[in-house]
Amino acid sequence: MQSFWWQREDLKYQNFDLHFAGQNLWEMVQQTGTPAFVYSGARVRANLERLHAALAAHRIPFRIFYALKANRFPPLVTALKQWGLCGIDVCSPGELLLARQMGFAEEEISYTGTSVSNADLEVIQRHPHVHVNCDALSTIRRLGERCPGREIGIRINPQVGAGYHAELHYAGAKATKFGIYPDRFREALELAKQYDLKIKQLHFHFGSGYLTPQLPQLAQALERTNWFLDQCQLQCPEIDTLDIGGGLGVPVTEDRAPLDLDQWATMIARHAQVRGVKIHLEPGDYLVKDAGVLLVQVNTVEEKGGTQFVGVNAGFNLQNLAVYYKTPFVVVPLRQKDLPAQTVTIAGNINEAIDLLAEDVSLPQMQEEDYLALLNVGGYGAASSSNHCMRGQFSEYWLG
Amino acid sequence: MQSFWWQREDLKYQNFDLHFAGQNLWEMVQQTGTPAFVYSGARVRANLERLHAALAAHRIPFRIFYALKANRFPPLVTALKQWGLCGIDVCSPGELLLARQMGFAEEEISYTGTSVSNADLEVIQRHPHVHVNCDALSTIRRLGERCPGREIGIRINPQVGAGYHAELHYAGAKATKFGIYPDRFREALELAKQYDLKIKQLHFHFGSGYLTPQLPQLAQALERTNWFLDQCQLQCPEIDTLDIGGGLGVPVTEDRAPLDLDQWATMIARHAQVRGVKIHLEPGDYLVKDAGVLLVQVNTVEEKGGTQFVGVNAGFNLQNLAVYYKTPFVVVPLRQKDLPAQTVTIAGNINEAIDLLAEDVSLPQMQEEDYLALLNVGGYGAASSSNHCMRGQFSEYWLG
Repeated sequence: MQSFWWQREDLKYQNFDLHFAGQNLWEMVQQTGTPAFVYSGARVRANLERLHAALAAHRIPFRIFYALKANRFPPLVTALKQWGLCGIDVCSPGELLLARQMGFAEEEISYTGTSVSNADLEVIQRHPHVHVNCDALSTIRRLGERCPGREIGIRINPQVGAGYHAELHYAGAKATKFGIYPDRFREALELAKQYDLKIKQLHFHFGSGYLTPQLPQLAQALERTNWFLDQCQLQCPEIDTLDIGGGLGVPVTEDRAPLDLDQWATMIARHAQVRGVKIHLEPGDYLVKDAGVLLVQVNTVEEKGGTQFVGVNAGFNLQNLAVYYKTPFVVVPLRQKDLPAQTVTIAGNINEAIDLLAEDVSLPQMQEEDYLALLNVGGYGAASSSNHCMRGQFSEYWLG
Repeated sequence: MQSFWWQREDLKYQNFDLHFAGQNLWEMVQQTGTPAFVYSGARVRANLERLHAALAAHRIPFRIFYALKANRFPPLVTALKQWGLCGIDVCSPGELLLARQMGFAEEEISYTGTSVSNADLEVIQRHPHVHVNCDALSTIRRLGERCPGREIGIRINPQVGAGYHAELHYAGAKATKFGIYPDRFREALELAKQYDLKIKQLHFHFGSGYLTPQLPQLAQALERTNWFLDQCQLQCPEIDTLDIGGGLGVPVTEDRAPLDLDQWATMIARHAQVRGVKIHLEPGDYLVKDAGVLLVQVNTVEEKGGTQFVGVNAGFNLQNLAVYYKTPFVVVPLRQKDLPAQTVTIAGNINEAIDLLAEDVSLPQMQEEDYLALLNVGGYGAASSSNHCMRGQFSEYWLG
């Protein structure tokens, strides 16, 4: 049988049907209908355990907080709670309350928000044991006014970034809205002191989707934290943790290799040991991206203006990242067939020209009513979907 | 008092407060809270009447169908129904049913969809008097199988486009998923004939956001329809209408002038008269864009990395177009103040680096808890918003 670069033990063709997490997706879709997101709990857990193993091998203290914004499907959040391998990182009052609703204790929640309003702070104030990473002087001041004496983290801007796309660089040459820059860090420490806020950790997030080739930039970002940590040693001895954010990438094209986690962990562990800090991290997409597929049905197969279009019953409103960041999807048939391959463009059902789910992909000749799977859509799909054109209907299925 | 390029009789400062449709927005926001979309029914109606007047002046028969995808706030849809100045153009079964729910008769509804599924066709089949524009051979065939003898429109691709952004060119050098190209038009006619479908109109949509400088491209698109209409005269004498789609633009920056509607209507009327066709059009954004503002509150004012950031309590998830198409927003204070102007970047509350609502805009020095209005957000705001980061809360207000 033909082999594909994306195939894995838990995601491959068996007797012509695509199987995922032990499930025959072609059979499954007869029941679920389309569009349907299907998530593998086993894959999420494997991704989480892989991170644990990589960090544990270096004997440094660490904690993982899953970034809820990537996917908040209740069975996923419940499973994460039951496994006990991570806490939850939230970025809004809604997410904080959801994490609580799903059973996470305050101590298991970190809050890393931006443009934090007073209304947001009121919710945070009601949860005194949630770890808060302040990403602006303004937040430190307003949190201090409300919760003097509280333990906090400070999000710094390391001024170096990397990721899937230039616009996913959260720190770099162009000023971003995230974190406190070196020139105002002393002010931040003074403000914290003024309100008796105890700075327990520094936080940075340098981009989304970094792989092995971007590790030198991570090293540079870690190096940049030295200056900030030095400032803290003098003024806030309580500091004992460095939160390195999320952003670990998953290869979405054949020419990219998975992130070398051993190299990644070695780099982080060395830094942690030298600085004597614990490590926190907030992976979101890394845990769920390749644990989710979107099943869609072909409704139109037609050559237009020299391009072979395959129209499907879902649009970019179910996976906005495709448009925001031009991240390519892998699109594969649910049932293989012995037809010649064609180069096609997958068109969604939203009335916007940008609604193309994949361009110039090779597929066996498609027919109407065939089923396709979009791979690597476990993150930032359902959670950030819209009802644009009233095409927002989909279902979600959890395979344990 | 200072004058601003965007000000209008119904949108201007009075005694330092921004007034919109006779309402003091600063006073209003004390009640509504933020984020809140505020729409002016009077402005929508003025936009609609302006279109009517421009076309009526040329004594050509025309009908307007409001493209529902731009904004489906119930009071708006109800007002449109009550005014009786337009029908509704829908692009999905959900929109079709909503238009019916809001009181529009089948005859007042046109359906212009893409990647149309059999499930979509079943809903269309239950509404035999809805005008359907088929944008693919596949749709003609499958509609024909279900509804032989039905009247239809055919969406053609004029292979010329224009708009706010290259990605808003719905027809042009790059093949798009929309419409039937000349090389397959004969096949389309044959298919229609095979199912006894009566072709009543041709439809094209050549881009979104065109202004006066793009009218030559519209002329070219109209010119391109001649060949298609010629084919029809021979084979389908029932054809009596040309649907020119939507896409009429609204200036969003100071350097652009409003679309010259007289020039626009002259061009269309000439074409309609020569060809002996009625005109249908489907404006969406044009009717609502400048009839809606989004009120937000400043929560953070902070210089970071040399950029002055003004953080607000709304994000790009409430107005995705900003990110999809880099369309700039006009951002203005709800209350003017006598403070020096600063060049600032408006940052939303979503944890993504792209969540900047406006960059390098000039505002009087902002303070926390100040209010701002984003102008020209009446279309593609609420209707295509998401709950990304669980920051999807907003309210909508209709000013009659």
